[in-house]
Amino acid sequence: MEEINNVEVVPCTQSDYLKPFRVHYNQNGTKKTWDFMRTHDSVSVLIFNTTSHCFVLVKQFRPAVYMCEWEKAKKQPNEKTEEGGAAEAAEAATAAESQEGESSSQGPPFSAGVTYELCAGLVDKPGLSLEEIARQEVLEECGYDVPASKLKRITSYRSGVGVTGSKQTMFYAEVSDDNCVSAGGGEPHEGEFIEVVKIPLHEAMLFAYNERIPKTMGVIFSFIWFHNNMAPKYKISTNV
Amino acid sequence: MEEINNVEVVPCTQSDYLKPFRVHYNQNGTKKTWDFMRTHDSVSVLIFNTTSHCFVLVKQFRPAVYMCEWEKAKKQPNEKTEEGGAAEAAEAATAAESQEGESSSQGPPFSAGVTYELCAGLVDKPGLSLEEIARQEVLEECGYDVPASKLKRITSYRSGVGVTGSKQTMFYAEVSDDNCVSAGGGEPHEGEFIEVVKIPLHEAMLFAYNERIPKTMGVIFSFIWFHNNMAPKYKISTNV
Repeated sequence: MEEINNVEVVPCTQSDYLKPFRVHYNQNGTKKTWDFMRTHDSVSVLIFNTTSHCFVLVKQFRPAVYMCEWEKAKKQPNEKTEEGGAAEAAEAATAAESQEGESSSQGPPFSAGVTYELCAGLVDKPGLSLEEIARQEVLEECGYDVPASKLKRITSYRSGVGVTGSKQTMFYAEVSDDNCVSAGGGEPHEGEFIEVVKIPLHEAMLFAYNERIPKTMGVIFSFIWFHNNMAPKYKISTNV
Repeated sequence: MEEINNVEVVPCTQSDYLKPFRVHYNQNGTKKTWDFMRTHDSVSVLIFNTTSHCFVLVKQFRPAVYMCEWEKAKKQPNEKTEEGGAAEAAEAATAAESQEGESSSQGPPFSAGVTYELCAGLVDKPGLSLEEIARQEVLEECGYDVPASKLKRITSYRSGVGVTGSKQTMFYAEVSDDNCVSAGGGEPHEGEFIEVVKIPLHEAMLFAYNERIPKTMGVIFSFIWFHNNMAPKYKISTNV
């Protein structure tokens, strides 16, 4: 049974990961200002195992997600945090100034911070193509060794348009059990603890729209993309 | 012709909008640390105008997106920034320390920072339901006055799982020209300059997958959701 405890939140004055900047600019002659953060672009990969007819996702504890639920639970100890009262809970999540150095030994269960996601990674390796970076993530996180040439580009889009505006590119990779060379799980020495999970194709659409299963939009979108574009090839109903 | 100039980037030591925090916690007995930002949950709305059979989107200049392209252009003045060399460009986007107070009168065109998005807003009004907040955004941004009860919940998901982990809830709203009470465009006194754009239903799928049109995943996903779940009702091909 996984658990989270000794949660302590402190202001972060200097971070190697979050670097706020301010841009001043003129828009049609009007002077404006916007705070933003620099970040890397990213890739994500919808992995379909043709041997078991399963999607391969990653499942991991996300501190930022957990902290959202932690704030909501703290503000509304007697209310359910998952549904209802979202407006008040969100307000609590940003009423931050009074909570410097606050510590709590109790909080939501570990599961409140766990999300299902596509295999994904940052574009932070100069000289590698997006496909090569995606290929490495498939190998490191999920344990499948597939050539970059087998990655099919699905599309790209902007994420976090208010804060980072980075570009995300999504790929599709068909793998088989023969391509499985390790258990995956990320890079433990980098602090990555990633669980590889398989979602059977016939359960995929129910999974996608089940709001009780915390997930990213990438999972939902890619499952539907597969349903529309790939499922006919496998002649299997995806229960839409 | 809209234009952006006098772009100046400075470090942001104190922001009303971006507030980095650090959380220390124990995960299964191992002490860990993560930097995150508190933010509000949000709502987004896919709007379909049944009179003109068009989707109603918003189009706006996003400084964070523009700065991504600005960084890439600065690092690679002789290369195309949109496609190719993404790894190097992304590295440039985070090589931030040397650029304090840097100013540039030249940069990418205004259009490099413009994105197409669903009508959306933050969940920052205590006491209002998600549907009521979504209803207000539809009115303010797009000019359609529809009752909250007409908003259909599509699904919810986590966004920015590495940094904010906030929850986004997506709705669907059918409107008609009769519901149009203003031109929309947001709140100019709050600095919002939002263009309301219509995408004809028969062009929607080509629009969704055209990577030359910068957009959020919410647009792509919701168009496909409509195609699968709503289009048959209108007996119109969406050209998939």
